[in-house]
Amino acid sequence: MDFSSKLLERAVNEMAQLPGIGKRTALRLLLHLLKQPLEQTDFLAKSLLQMREEIKFCKSCHNISDVEVCEICSNQNRNHNIICVVEDIRDVMAIENTGQFRGIYHVLGGKISPIDGVGPSQLNIATLVDKVKMSEVEEIIFALSSTMEGDTTNFYIYKQLKDFDIKTSTIARGISVGDELEYADEVTLGRSIVNRIPFENSLKSN
Amino acid sequence: MDFSSKLLERAVNEMAQLPGIGKRTALRLLLHLLKQPLEQTDFLAKSLLQMREEIKFCKSCHNISDVEVCEICSNQNRNHNIICVVEDIRDVMAIENTGQFRGIYHVLGGKISPIDGVGPSQLNIATLVDKVKMSEVEEIIFALSSTMEGDTTNFYIYKQLKDFDIKTSTIARGISVGDELEYADEVTLGRSIVNRIPFENSLKSN
Repeated sequence: MDFSSKLLERAVNEMAQLPGIGKRTALRLLLHLLKQPLEQTDFLAKSLLQMREEIKFCKSCHNISDVEVCEICSNQNRNHNIICVVEDIRDVMAIENTGQFRGIYHVLGGKISPIDGVGPSQLNIATLVDKVKMSEVEEIIFALSSTMEGDTTNFYIYKQLKDFDIKTSTIARGISVGDELEYADEVTLGRSIVNRIPFENSLKSN
Repeated sequence: MDFSSKLLERAVNEMAQLPGIGKRTALRLLLHLLKQPLEQTDFLAKSLLQMREEIKFCKSCHNISDVEVCEICSNQNRNHNIICVVEDIRDVMAIENTGQFRGIYHVLGGKISPIDGVGPSQLNIATLVDKVKMSEVEEIIFALSSTMEGDTTNFYIYKQLKDFDIKTSTIARGISVGDELEYADEVTLGRSIVNRIPFENSLKSN
């Protein structure tokens, strides 16, 4: 693209480094900002910088937090003996939104993926094992996505924990509530039949 | 959404004000920035601010520019008597990329759209009329999109200019080069037949 302004070109190039934002989209967003009051760009730029510079990660669960230990980990009304292992903080937010989980979390920060150069040592796995060693953990729930990488990560952690006397579980896979069976993929439909639950249990949830 | 950090929440809210960016997308982009070196966020924030604060609009054609008069308007090798009227600077970039136009531009900054509260006085129309009065303009090319708003804007400007001895034209509408006829919409196909050109002319272009 042939920009008539170096300032605009530089901003487009910076913006287009964000995942899923191409140069055309970046240009559209920037032209929008140019039409808005200066304050909007000012607030945006400052909130980005402040977030990046000041945000902390909970030293217990690695969730994002403004303080040393996040609200969830410091909440004494939650069951600290049940730990839900997730990939990133979006998963924490998604599960919290359901209102169905009263334990605590452990954010790995990714999945084991040799193709992307991510090994176990780059993830927050050691601190999870320490937590199991140090405190009275009863159950670990694996809530990673069911991909090759997710399964590999689950299994790696499972092996690390197999000498401890704890329960391990994974979230249920099945047909989404409200979905038509005929459109479900075979693997999911198959698993939902194999892992069927007593009918009475389905009456309880929600 | 339930954020565990006010800093993150504020950044998401600011980012989600950009057109086409929802809160989920904003969160995804911000989590990406958190995983990257601090410099990336720093460069992005600074380039946004600097662009918004320092960018100028060419005082002749209203194109974006780092100087008072843009490169195109100050280029003496271009024909200053042929003016192509466009909606915004993306159109200038698109036409410049074709390499087929050697005149100058006039950027309106939008289209007349009563629904959006945009009247002729909010657009750069008066300066176009002044330019026609003051200098020896030979031809005005309308290159707005062929929508109701585009047509209204074209016609409004056409009326303002009808007492001057200048040629007015609009860009050709027709079937895209390389497109199959059977998939073209009726209006475009119809226009391309009504406004057919001598066969020899088609041999010249590109």
